[in-house]
Amino acid sequence: MGTGGLIDCDVHNAVSGDEELRPYLSQRWRRHMELVGSRTFSPFTKGYAYPKAARLASRRDAWPPTGGLPGSDLDFMRGQLLDAYPVERAVLNCLFRAPEQRYDAYGAALAAAVNDWQVEQWLERDERLRASVTVPFEFPDLAAAEIDRSSAHPGFVQVLLYPRTAAPLGRRQYWPIYEAACRAGLPVGIHAASTTPGPITATGWPSYYIEDHTGLAVAFQAQVVSLIFNGVFDRFPGLRVVLLEGGFAWVPALAHRLDALHARLGEEVPDLRYPPSHYLRTHIRITTQPMEEPERAADLVPLLREVGADLLMFSTDYPHWDFDDPYRAFRTRVPPDLRRRIMHDNACATYRLAS
Amino acid sequence: MGTGGLIDCDVHNAVSGDEELRPYLSQRWRRHMELVGSRTFSPFTKGYAYPKAARLASRRDAWPPTGGLPGSDLDFMRGQLLDAYPVERAVLNCLFRAPEQRYDAYGAALAAAVNDWQVEQWLERDERLRASVTVPFEFPDLAAAEIDRSSAHPGFVQVLLYPRTAAPLGRRQYWPIYEAACRAGLPVGIHAASTTPGPITATGWPSYYIEDHTGLAVAFQAQVVSLIFNGVFDRFPGLRVVLLEGGFAWVPALAHRLDALHARLGEEVPDLRYPPSHYLRTHIRITTQPMEEPERAADLVPLLREVGADLLMFSTDYPHWDFDDPYRAFRTRVPPDLRRRIMHDNACATYRLAS
Repeated sequence: MGTGGLIDCDVHNAVSGDEELRPYLSQRWRRHMELVGSRTFSPFTKGYAYPKAARLASRRDAWPPTGGLPGSDLDFMRGQLLDAYPVERAVLNCLFRAPEQRYDAYGAALAAAVNDWQVEQWLERDERLRASVTVPFEFPDLAAAEIDRSSAHPGFVQVLLYPRTAAPLGRRQYWPIYEAACRAGLPVGIHAASTTPGPITATGWPSYYIEDHTGLAVAFQAQVVSLIFNGVFDRFPGLRVVLLEGGFAWVPALAHRLDALHARLGEEVPDLRYPPSHYLRTHIRITTQPMEEPERAADLVPLLREVGADLLMFSTDYPHWDFDDPYRAFRTRVPPDLRRRIMHDNACATYRLAS
Repeated sequence: MGTGGLIDCDVHNAVSGDEELRPYLSQRWRRHMELVGSRTFSPFTKGYAYPKAARLASRRDAWPPTGGLPGSDLDFMRGQLLDAYPVERAVLNCLFRAPEQRYDAYGAALAAAVNDWQVEQWLERDERLRASVTVPFEFPDLAAAEIDRSSAHPGFVQVLLYPRTAAPLGRRQYWPIYEAACRAGLPVGIHAASTTPGPITATGWPSYYIEDHTGLAVAFQAQVVSLIFNGVFDRFPGLRVVLLEGGFAWVPALAHRLDALHARLGEEVPDLRYPPSHYLRTHIRITTQPMEEPERAADLVPLLREVGADLLMFSTDYPHWDFDDPYRAFRTRVPPDLRRRIMHDNACATYRLAS
């Protein structure tokens, strides 16, 4: 695993039900939860296009004996992940539907509750844990306020956004979030999930979960393109963006296309300071799960190098069905130096983790 | 016409083509106009769902001999409107597609150009004219900046929004516009037009212009409901909203329904300070064109009184096809006091016009 152990950059802790957040809500919002409850941007009540797939997106063995959802029980997570592998740090990305709420103030109240719950139930119960700040990012001023508030706790190492949003993330409506993230010194993570009220692919609603899941890699690329060309990295030079669960084999092709088109169409975006691939390599980091599996296993190492030895950070995606086992994720021998960067050093630098 | 003459609250001055705005654009945006040009939220290039209907929405006799669009020639407008009727003041609502631009900074540059063009070509050439500030309202921070800038000229008496927007106008993303309007002491006018990237009715894309046009009244009502329940008038107690070309016969029915439902569902919006109809009567003003025409002409006066003697303000909608002739718009005798309020006094109060 390398000298420094493993940093797992994508682990999901779960709120088993609304009632678990009640202690972290004011009377006003408890009453709203009882009276009205969740109303999300998505036409699907829970914000998932494929509710059964989402629920069953977990490993079959990940349902804890205590009865909650996979990822809801820290002790059980210790047994299956934190103690089962040499995990030095694990970054929790809670996907509770606070950012999906259409009612701005309720979304903000739920996000704050999730973060307080993360501090009390996770960060302060295991020193290996770090977490992402849940924010109501479709209301950027409220998201910025929540970043300012939660980032006071040193356990938060990232701000969490999704790749399928109401508008491309480069657009100016989201800029207050990047400003707040820079102010807090945190990278912005983008993790597979959705707040869009519209179809989740560029060609409308797909028929199958397998299309939805494949399409995620495309959504991530669209966000990268939007962030670069809307000048987000020029405006916020300190901003770092982590792509979580969006694949990485597409990086060389996208970098090439970005630069080739910029050479011919760049006059439309004259304020861009660098060739677009520069921003990709400088500001973007990418987690490895789901690990790419080239037809010839030996092709993996050249691919990793082409994507960039500094870009990739290992993740398991525990407790989801497509979990990558740290011992088995690489189907080929990876040189120790490259392996150490991916398993440990890049994440330490990105999340400013003391090692 | 009453002692004070006529205030026409809805007259359309038109930019005949992009080239007319060139003198008001910096080199950067002139170049962008040549190179890329207009790209609007709507799937239809010019932002109109029914381009021919929109172009032909003018009176056949309103095309000026100078060759531009209807509403583009001040002298011709004088002959057909300002001098043809006892017009004391006319409020110009320019519907150039600046607010529809998807490129934020280009939309802002076009809006500023439209406003500077309005000052030079209209406001400073006829003292009877007043105008609405064109703003890129889907980018509220840029809209607020343009309000701050343009409202320095005393000829601007209103901020112009549309009833078919990317989101309901009560939602928090638009609040910076209301803050700036209050800071400038200007009402916000909502005039028939669209910036939505989605379908223009609640049931999708209609087949006919006649459905589009009928549906406008519904869009206005939805905006009123959104503004009230999202607490905009509680947050901005000085805000006044003018509905332009949305009809008014629906006011009594909507006021009743708002209060009846609030009595039963009000717990969902506990921050509302007053019954909803209070906001409608206190903060909303409505222009008359297209004048309602009850089956029995004598029913008009009771309707006007039920809607509210202080709510209504006369408008012709010159030069559009459904122009209301000030001498003929009322198909029945209207008592002089009520008539004077509608033709003159209410507009003077709303737009703070010296009489």
